[in-house]
Amino acid sequence: MGSPERIRNVAKRVARWKAQGHQIVVVVSAMSGETNRLIALAKDVSPQPDARELDVMVSTGEQVTIALLAMALKDIGVPAKSYTGSQVKVLTDSSFNKARILEIDDGAVRRDLDASTVVIVAGFQGVDADGNITTLGRGGSDTSGVALAAALSADECQIYTDVDGVYTTDPRIVPEARKLDQITFEEMLELASLGSKVLQIRSVEFAGKYKVKLRVLSSFEEEGKETAGTLITFEENEAMEQPIISGIAFSRDEAKLTLVGVPDKPGIAYQILGPVADANIDVDMIIQNVGHDGTADFSFTVSRAEFARAKALLEDKIKPHVGARVVEGDSKICKVSAVGVGMRSHPGVASKMFRTLAEEGINIQMISTSEIKISVVVDEKYLELAVRVLHRAFELDQAAA
Amino acid sequence: MGSPERIRNVAKRVARWKAQGHQIVVVVSAMSGETNRLIALAKDVSPQPDARELDVMVSTGEQVTIALLAMALKDIGVPAKSYTGSQVKVLTDSSFNKARILEIDDGAVRRDLDASTVVIVAGFQGVDADGNITTLGRGGSDTSGVALAAALSADECQIYTDVDGVYTTDPRIVPEARKLDQITFEEMLELASLGSKVLQIRSVEFAGKYKVKLRVLSSFEEEGKETAGTLITFEENEAMEQPIISGIAFSRDEAKLTLVGVPDKPGIAYQILGPVADANIDVDMIIQNVGHDGTADFSFTVSRAEFARAKALLEDKIKPHVGARVVEGDSKICKVSAVGVGMRSHPGVASKMFRTLAEEGINIQMISTSEIKISVVVDEKYLELAVRVLHRAFELDQAAA
Repeated sequence: MGSPERIRNVAKRVARWKAQGHQIVVVVSAMSGETNRLIALAKDVSPQPDARELDVMVSTGEQVTIALLAMALKDIGVPAKSYTGSQVKVLTDSSFNKARILEIDDGAVRRDLDASTVVIVAGFQGVDADGNITTLGRGGSDTSGVALAAALSADECQIYTDVDGVYTTDPRIVPEARKLDQITFEEMLELASLGSKVLQIRSVEFAGKYKVKLRVLSSFEEEGKETAGTLITFEENEAMEQPIISGIAFSRDEAKLTLVGVPDKPGIAYQILGPVADANIDVDMIIQNVGHDGTADFSFTVSRAEFARAKALLEDKIKPHVGARVVEGDSKICKVSAVGVGMRSHPGVASKMFRTLAEEGINIQMISTSEIKISVVVDEKYLELAVRVLHRAFELDQAAA
Repeated sequence: MGSPERIRNVAKRVARWKAQGHQIVVVVSAMSGETNRLIALAKDVSPQPDARELDVMVSTGEQVTIALLAMALKDIGVPAKSYTGSQVKVLTDSSFNKARILEIDDGAVRRDLDASTVVIVAGFQGVDADGNITTLGRGGSDTSGVALAAALSADECQIYTDVDGVYTTDPRIVPEARKLDQITFEEMLELASLGSKVLQIRSVEFAGKYKVKLRVLSSFEEEGKETAGTLITFEENEAMEQPIISGIAFSRDEAKLTLVGVPDKPGIAYQILGPVADANIDVDMIIQNVGHDGTADFSFTVSRAEFARAKALLEDKIKPHVGARVVEGDSKICKVSAVGVGMRSHPGVASKMFRTLAEEGINIQMISTSEIKISVVVDEKYLELAVRVLHRAFELDQAAA
């Protein structure tokens, strides 16, 4: 939600959906910059604002938008009614600033929908059992939308973003990247967590859990030129040909740490990773290479922000404790992943990926695989090249056959 | 409520009251300019904003302030909790933008007070029986404060304004005007309705109805230099000497209309004022002078904004219908009033007022009296002179004996 102009445009779009006979619930976020303005105002009064009161304040951002959209709809003859999270009500736990939705009362909303009224709900907010206003934390409006769609058994939950769908990879790196018409939740989760930041990962998880179909659409498309975006389904292969690979994801936010010459004995992985976990450092990929001299090299990746802290921890605490020879670190790496549910039934994907990278002289430093994903760690300087050649090798620039 | 700086100052003041052992409920308005900003934003989206949705939007102004004040209090170690009108709850009727309070649930507030928590309530807003957010209309924060004070049987309801109390008259006209320590509700109602715009008339009526003591205080006084303001009581003469006259009020917003030569017969007043009332024109003072020729002159005053409309109505409709000779109008008049409960037991007030004006050569055009007020209409050019000489004649520049 941006300017008054944007709000009138959203109203027109909702009116067209309504004219097609749909019952519509619109979940809105605050106007651009409003949440940040409110947080800045709070910090101006109180350096560390009280969590409960911050939610009372920040929730006004969406409250303004629901009212504006309802007004704009009524102005063009569409019956509409706004609801705050408390009014719906969207019951959450009492974790202010980062509450989780427990239950949604769909009674009032259903009555309005049955009376042909468009219902507009403030996203990002709820109310706890004691009547306190809560917010779901940043990005929570998507989650609100999904939760309402689930509670109302909606046909689909459309999420309007600043992109027009989910792409086979980042078009800034591969101009031939193609918008996907459809993708599964599992794939979307892998793509989202690997850096395709189209949707909040939490809302995708939520949608998967409650079997809500999501559609990613652009909120910037002109009237009459709207596209269908990308449908994220929980059913694989809905009567359409599933490509083996749906997309190539990547992340630069990676750093690698290696303990060289670790005695190869049971329990060593725990002795290394236990203290790392205790320090609240998330570990992503893990590899252990057993050598011939009774020692092993133990490597893992962390986010770059944690690199220095993790390295110091290895040097100061873990290396002496486990008796490793040396700690090596490399923060100039990246992760490139091929994602697709089709690889379950096509065993040749990994070898094709490795061959493609080898042909370009790209050395693979680490590998990890899941049922629907193969990730490799390579030198950061190869990131664009690796993404481009993999995108081409898996024919992602061509529409599904 | 103004800037973050102002909010921190209010917090300090509340903390000092709290330290004195008081249980405190603070009712706040929106930050300066915020309500107007929200209304402008609404009109930017919708020229005539829907009344329900406007309340959803405008109520966010106070919601932001309650959160900020609660944060500021907690920062200085005072336990505090904010409540929106819906959370309290302040039950109103469903007249959006101008709702009336029906009932206040004091349960949660009392529990917090008993737990030594300062309760901060959003003024100006409530919730109807269906859970819709309502607002009380402009100035409603005062009314919210009074209603809460009544519901909680508070010792007194302090209203912080931009003046430090109620004065014997406008100090801009009479520099010797004196701040009153105490005044009765009846007097305050007369003073308020006659143009001493210290308090919203509705909140004063409300306070009188529920026997809530009001104290008008300045919100701009510096720490340590606060005065006791003016206490507005429902009990006359609380063991203190009551002056005969408490204040001289005045209004420039007056215009006079006279129908000359009206046949003097029963029902004529209704034939004249009925159509005026039907046109939604409020009439204030009314005088009928019976002449010797079987006709009368019929005069009344209206607000200046209604002068042209009322004059046209008299000319076009009423004069021909009642058979008057001529319509005269004068928009250069003013009303000056002496107000005081003491005049009930002091019959000489009217004659003293008339003599004082006569000595200055000020001609009295109309007179109206009530139990505690005498008003006269005079030429507007005499307004300042009349207020000054009456203020002196009734010794209002001298502290009560």
